[in-house]
Amino acid sequence: MATSKILIAQGGGPTAVINQSLVGAVLAARRLRQVDFVYGARHGVRGIVNEDLLDLTQETTDNLERVAATPASALGSTRDKPDVKYCQEIFKVLRAHEIGQFFYIGGNDSSDTVRIVSEEARKAGYPLRCMHIPKTIDNDLVGNDHTPGFPSAARFVVQAFAGANLDNAALPGVYVGVVMGRHAGFLTAAAALARKYPDDGPHLVYLPERDFSTDKFLADVKAVHDRLGRCIVAVSEGIHDASGTAIASQLAKTVERDAHGNVQLSGTGALADLLCDEIKDKLKIKRVRGDTFGYLQRSFLGCVSEVDQREAREAGERAVQFATSGAADGSVAITRTGDYAVGYSLLPLEAVAGRTRVMEDELIAASGTDVTDAFRRYLQPLLGTGLPEVARLRAPAVPKLLGATR
Amino acid sequence: MATSKILIAQGGGPTAVINQSLVGAVLAARRLRQVDFVYGARHGVRGIVNEDLLDLTQETTDNLERVAATPASALGSTRDKPDVKYCQEIFKVLRAHEIGQFFYIGGNDSSDTVRIVSEEARKAGYPLRCMHIPKTIDNDLVGNDHTPGFPSAARFVVQAFAGANLDNAALPGVYVGVVMGRHAGFLTAAAALARKYPDDGPHLVYLPERDFSTDKFLADVKAVHDRLGRCIVAVSEGIHDASGTAIASQLAKTVERDAHGNVQLSGTGALADLLCDEIKDKLKIKRVRGDTFGYLQRSFLGCVSEVDQREAREAGERAVQFATSGAADGSVAITRTGDYAVGYSLLPLEAVAGRTRVMEDELIAASGTDVTDAFRRYLQPLLGTGLPEVARLRAPAVPKLLGATR
Repeated sequence: MATSKILIAQGGGPTAVINQSLVGAVLAARRLRQVDFVYGARHGVRGIVNEDLLDLTQETTDNLERVAATPASALGSTRDKPDVKYCQEIFKVLRAHEIGQFFYIGGNDSSDTVRIVSEEARKAGYPLRCMHIPKTIDNDLVGNDHTPGFPSAARFVVQAFAGANLDNAALPGVYVGVVMGRHAGFLTAAAALARKYPDDGPHLVYLPERDFSTDKFLADVKAVHDRLGRCIVAVSEGIHDASGTAIASQLAKTVERDAHGNVQLSGTGALADLLCDEIKDKLKIKRVRGDTFGYLQRSFLGCVSEVDQREAREAGERAVQFATSGAADGSVAITRTGDYAVGYSLLPLEAVAGRTRVMEDELIAASGTDVTDAFRRYLQPLLGTGLPEVARLRAPAVPKLLGATR
Repeated sequence: MATSKILIAQGGGPTAVINQSLVGAVLAARRLRQVDFVYGARHGVRGIVNEDLLDLTQETTDNLERVAATPASALGSTRDKPDVKYCQEIFKVLRAHEIGQFFYIGGNDSSDTVRIVSEEARKAGYPLRCMHIPKTIDNDLVGNDHTPGFPSAARFVVQAFAGANLDNAALPGVYVGVVMGRHAGFLTAAAALARKYPDDGPHLVYLPERDFSTDKFLADVKAVHDRLGRCIVAVSEGIHDASGTAIASQLAKTVERDAHGNVQLSGTGALADLLCDEIKDKLKIKRVRGDTFGYLQRSFLGCVSEVDQREAREAGERAVQFATSGAADGSVAITRTGDYAVGYSLLPLEAVAGRTRVMEDELIAASGTDVTDAFRRYLQPLLGTGLPEVARLRAPAVPKLLGATR
């Protein structure tokens, strides 16, 4: 019974390559002699308790390959985190369907879900192999060189800032781009790889790993703007002051105090707008624009790193191999073994679950507003090939005949 | 003297292909026997009055080709609109440099600039051939089947909504995406081509060509959400009520009234956030997310339609050919001559300048919240090839053994 039926699910925020992991696991499982059925749960653990399962043994390989190339979670996802009672409901369903192995593709919260399900299964005496397959654009899983999903999202951020830099050079001003990542700044830091020429932006990068001061921020922007006549800023949504207070809520409070009212600022564009308002008000710069990359950075169709695709696929396949060959539950992790090459290891669930990796100090420049060469070397091979090249005119100036400048 | 020196410049908002038009014109001009020099003005007409000119005769063809493939305005752009005095400064510089032909690549405002410069040159007795080369992601130039820059921006919108639809299907809720286009809804309408399956979003499309009612909007969203458990909305930034008041400022006023203060809502994320707040408040739907596509939709590096690239290139080349062979100033226009094929005509500047095309009635569905098949047929060939395909799992459900749903 133990391995005759396999159940796989997807949790947390979708990515560009999470379906690669799904298909990697499904195809690997379908090749196993001892596996009769591969089930998928709709919307993560919620689909298990609702007995909302699909029989993936009935999927054609061709369709699975096309699903693998499709972004977002094909099975559907959930933010549910099971407690003991929820787990009992899960086991009731697993027992009824004689499921022997459970694979959950997800990030931090999902790995903790796998840990809880694994523990409760053991306590309940229910024989269940539980495997976590990593996925998160935030790149914040400990024990991993990087996580599937991050390289493609990073590629989006690079392409976005490379384009914003060109746009801003054409119509100069200040541009603020707010990037996802509440605790870890990896995705925001990726913006630094958008630069080609020495004066290219982003000129300033603000990460949640460093305390944010609005005064320092304004002085930084002013210095760049005075020097170049323009300034591109990459900001993590998770920036906070020394006391840990999110800047979004801090600035919002100021607005509230000015307005003597209760202004709701829960919308996703709030941080970018507030930072832009600060720049306009305090620095008297006229052309200030802000974009919040929002869901585009994780869902945009057609922005994907082929390195990321390959690794996400392998992580799913290795999870099935670990489950079949090993004797322990665990979390699959990517290890860098060369420049550039990776391997996959199995970590104890407790080593990953509920823990958050942030950017290591050696990846952040001493200024606190840029990355180091070590970060550039770290990220470059993950972005994949085929990134569009940009070029500038380099024609000489025509000698002035009138001389006066208006 | 009349054609020995040519001057070219770029105005208005950058696009993904405006440099194709630049390079198309420069290469065509450099091939002409009677042209000795091809100059480029930095930052549009401002570069002329500042005598800030580049000698594009000194650009290598290879670098020009790489610049052509680079988004945004390589010469730099401007929002300046010359008056008579400004024009006199322009002629002073043109006369000093013996410029005989002036090419200006841009949208509505730029075409009007060309018209004013052309008129003032005639009045001043300065012999100058003035040509407008079309460019605008808004697609709002009259006399054109479509304008260079629009197809690539439309492709971005399609890829964005196709991805947002998948993300929203994985984690259901309401998603509002705000798209550029203050008067013309073409770019917002492009979102409709993101659909593949019958229940795909965007489920509602709001255009500036139709009056917007917040109550009707809430009823529309509720109906879709009740039916599908989720809802994707594409909204033009230019939506307004029957009196012409922009919804952004209308909703902002409500917030101000609630708060008894002066809340600044000029930030670009405001409309999306305000619409999301309305949905949360009035419909009591929990998961409501808004994105403002902002500058990403016009500047994102690596999202381009090859049809757009080709036509932008041709528009620049044809402008030089019209200027050399004809006897009149004018604006190059794209005409659809087949399904799919185009030709280029020269319109009088007065026919284009200062006028705004909006979506024709036959392109908008009777519901006012969708497009027609005519629009789909219109846009599809412009998007180019290689759009990523999406696929769904279609595995059968596993029969329920317990039956209860949680």
